[in-house]
Amino acid sequence: MAATETLTAERILEATEEVLRRYGPAKATVVDVARVLGVSHGSVYRHFRTKAALREAVTERWLSRTEVALAELTGAPGRPAPEKLHSWFATLFEAKRHKAGDDPELFATYSVLIDENSDVVDRHIDVLIDQVRSIVEEGSREAEFTAADPDATARALFHATARFHDPAYAPEWRRPAIEAEFESVVGLLLRGLRP
Amino acid sequence: MAATETLTAERILEATEEVLRRYGPAKATVVDVARVLGVSHGSVYRHFRTKAALREAVTERWLSRTEVALAELTGAPGRPAPEKLHSWFATLFEAKRHKAGDDPELFATYSVLIDENSDVVDRHIDVLIDQVRSIVEEGSREAEFTAADPDATARALFHATARFHDPAYAPEWRRPAIEAEFESVVGLLLRGLRP
Repeated sequence: MAATETLTAERILEATEEVLRRYGPAKATVVDVARVLGVSHGSVYRHFRTKAALREAVTERWLSRTEVALAELTGAPGRPAPEKLHSWFATLFEAKRHKAGDDPELFATYSVLIDENSDVVDRHIDVLIDQVRSIVEEGSREAEFTAADPDATARALFHATARFHDPAYAPEWRRPAIEAEFESVVGLLLRGLRP
Repeated sequence: MAATETLTAERILEATEEVLRRYGPAKATVVDVARVLGVSHGSVYRHFRTKAALREAVTERWLSRTEVALAELTGAPGRPAPEKLHSWFATLFEAKRHKAGDDPELFATYSVLIDENSDVVDRHIDVLIDQVRSIVEEGSREAEFTAADPDATARALFHATARFHDPAYAPEWRRPAIEAEFESVVGLLLRGLRP
């Protein structure tokens, strides 16, 4: 990349992801990131004060891509809540599976970063559960769902579907039965929300 | 222990568990087991032909303790199926939590053994899902549950409650909110089974 382009945080994060993919999380350094960008490592440190801050930011960026896609779906008007909720969990599953399957090295890299940055992951999960709560509330308003405590219900829905989004289950996602298992679990949960 | 006692498979397995607890799974040897029993290692090999077979048998014994306790509950007559199912998952959760919390070293040891013996674990999960299926069928017969496909429903129930029995979640089991989370998930699932 040309050093004459403006050095933005986004460009640094892109380069960091590239370096992590190439060298793995144990070996990647800020100097490697600077080299890819054709800048001094001081320039990188002006945007991210420590290597840990850079690794945290790149993890956050990776997780937020999924949040943005799901937020669109959550906010879309005019869909019945049960259909929207099914589609929300299917999209989450597809996004996680896509990340795990299409680029397994990068997924393994982020698994290491995620273990280092548990606060970022907690925030990610809060954002996701908040989206589920908003769909549950919408369904309750329209009398499509019964949920006395939408927050607790949203958490229960998220926990009950962990097999289809928790990276601990990634090895299961290649099994042919996984699609049918997803439909069984989500179907049962949707029946549990019926008024 | 006195070598004059009859050397049974059960005595060897007890001694193996003791040795695993003392030395950890990486260091424990068949010679250590023989020493605890005051017998030659040849005597141990007459019951278990290889170290791997011994480790597999001790893992199976550890997992089957939970199966036996739950089988009693599954077979008990005269309880409404929803109550029985709630109680079955509460007992499973309690058993796993008890194992993880009261003897964390032994739990860590068995976590290693479980990774080595995935067939034994698959069989354990099949036994458990089979018990759930039997409660679902009982509830369907009594018109307490609706489940078009009891086997798929049993699997869905087991998968949806993974947070409360999969050892991958053991660190969560010490959090105070976990009890309320269990009740939310199981409550939602039981509502999903209503006719």
